[in-house]
Amino acid sequence: MNQAILLKNRPEGKPQLSDFEFTKEDQPEDQDGEVLLKSKYVSVDPYLRGRMRDVESYIDPFKLNEPLESNIVAEVISSKNSNFKEGDFVHGMLKWKEYQTSDGKGLNKVDEDKASLSAYLGILGLTGLTAYISLDKIGDLKKGETLLVSGASGAVGSTVGQIGKIKGCRVVGIAGSDEKLELMKEKFGFDEGINYKSTEDMAEAIASTCPNGVDVYYDNVGGEILDAAMNNINKDGRVINCGAISLYNETEPQTGPRYEGIFVKKTVKMQGFLVRDHVKEFGPAIQQLTKWLNEDKLTYSETVVEGFENIPQAFIDLFEGKNKGKMVVKIY
Amino acid sequence: MNQAILLKNRPEGKPQLSDFEFTKEDQPEDQDGEVLLKSKYVSVDPYLRGRMRDVESYIDPFKLNEPLESNIVAEVISSKNSNFKEGDFVHGMLKWKEYQTSDGKGLNKVDEDKASLSAYLGILGLTGLTAYISLDKIGDLKKGETLLVSGASGAVGSTVGQIGKIKGCRVVGIAGSDEKLELMKEKFGFDEGINYKSTEDMAEAIASTCPNGVDVYYDNVGGEILDAAMNNINKDGRVINCGAISLYNETEPQTGPRYEGIFVKKTVKMQGFLVRDHVKEFGPAIQQLTKWLNEDKLTYSETVVEGFENIPQAFIDLFEGKNKGKMVVKIY
Repeated sequence: MNQAILLKNRPEGKPQLSDFEFTKEDQPEDQDGEVLLKSKYVSVDPYLRGRMRDVESYIDPFKLNEPLESNIVAEVISSKNSNFKEGDFVHGMLKWKEYQTSDGKGLNKVDEDKASLSAYLGILGLTGLTAYISLDKIGDLKKGETLLVSGASGAVGSTVGQIGKIKGCRVVGIAGSDEKLELMKEKFGFDEGINYKSTEDMAEAIASTCPNGVDVYYDNVGGEILDAAMNNINKDGRVINCGAISLYNETEPQTGPRYEGIFVKKTVKMQGFLVRDHVKEFGPAIQQLTKWLNEDKLTYSETVVEGFENIPQAFIDLFEGKNKGKMVVKIY
Repeated sequence: MNQAILLKNRPEGKPQLSDFEFTKEDQPEDQDGEVLLKSKYVSVDPYLRGRMRDVESYIDPFKLNEPLESNIVAEVISSKNSNFKEGDFVHGMLKWKEYQTSDGKGLNKVDEDKASLSAYLGILGLTGLTAYISLDKIGDLKKGETLLVSGASGAVGSTVGQIGKIKGCRVVGIAGSDEKLELMKEKFGFDEGINYKSTEDMAEAIASTCPNGVDVYYDNVGGEILDAAMNNINKDGRVINCGAISLYNETEPQTGPRYEGIFVKKTVKMQGFLVRDHVKEFGPAIQQLTKWLNEDKLTYSETVVEGFENIPQAFIDLFEGKNKGKMVVKIY
């Protein structure tokens, strides 16, 4: 029997295990033009929380009692589609099922010799693409500038910081444990780190680690950390809104300080970013990221959870900050 | 004797007449290399409120007990500077004095045949330049899009709306009286208007006047009107922060709803604008504005207050919305 994970309830606040349901179904078979896929690595991402709400957004909400989906690396088990053959690895937006069939649309082949399979869910997948393309389109980093990154030990944040260093910036990261700060500095080459959980005055901490102010703030979290960054933003500063994980589980609208005065006086630019809007730039971006990876200018970390049955818990753990870098689930 | 207006107190909240002081001084005389100027039209602008605070900003604060300054059109009464001759008209950042001398730096000659003298403080001055350059740099208006403008009957707002119509947009303006809405629609060609003083639910009023949502919101006011606009912003919407008059007189930091979620989901761009950063583009912008003016594609309104002694009151009246279009003071 084939296992699948359905959305049972739309979470209220923080997602719970009881919001997910495991079901069994007959083993699928590939028909003409189809491939049969076995899931190997499943990506769990904060943005999936948004799809669990029944509201209009940039991507359709998940339906109740239907399988969830995310980016998955899968192996072709058998093929009746001439573009794929048994033993190929592919990635694409696939269902949370052990086995599934696909007509091949939206599947991209993966080259295991260039990078590990899970890298295609992270540094060479949407997270790496997000970091690279958003910095390119909005950040406009210049040598010598100061780049501040929140969620800095995460998959996107750690890549953003490394690209900042490649571009010759001072890079300061914000994360939630001293262990994560250590990782940022030792592994990813950040210049300084701030532990937001043990810091009382974030604005002051940013001021002291960014003595020349903040030229670009890369925001993965929103909320009070964004406020503190705005208090330190330079003239012509840029803020990239890539996520707001601090707000995703809030059930009531949140309030915060008004920034209008800062926007005008400092001529700040703030811009939201969704990697899906930039599919045309994926090719050259992956090329550049692969080059940096092979030149050892770029590295990544991932938290690999094992077992299909642990996908929901791995997703929930994202909101506890239990991952270091990209969170993936390995399926045997 | 020559009259001047000094900043006596830094205003707390709304500026008062008692914050200003009139003084008399000897009539100035032009020395070698100088011109003697007689003020003809004095511009009063909301941004001057910011210079009355003793805080670091994009422009130095006014000093206590020294003359205030703003953009002024003046007549050359006598000249010992070969670039200017008696009878020339010039404009530039000048002191609030009846007469003053200048070494000519920062003075621009004004052609009375091309437009009226006061136009050089408005449609062909910083307000027209602000509207034109900010829309060009940030707005990126496309034919058929919806442009929402606050402070819409004001000097910048009414020019923004007209440029929106020239570009083929649906243009909706927000202002504080039915008389102003009438002016916007009849004189400036706005498609629709919203009276924010008589409207309870601004978000709903915007939704009904902008049935296709808001593609560009041109914000001169900040605060709750910005909130209502953000609730109606479209995917890839742009917000130009050109001013925040609703907050200028606040003595405490203000709070409001958090927009992070909207920024990410709608990939909104919000950007502050200061015309002083774009001096290089003034030439071509004035050329385009003059062309539209002479083709009758652009018009303007101004509120002309008469008499040097009324400059402080005219400035104070800006915050009561007593002006329609550019507020200038005519000096005899």
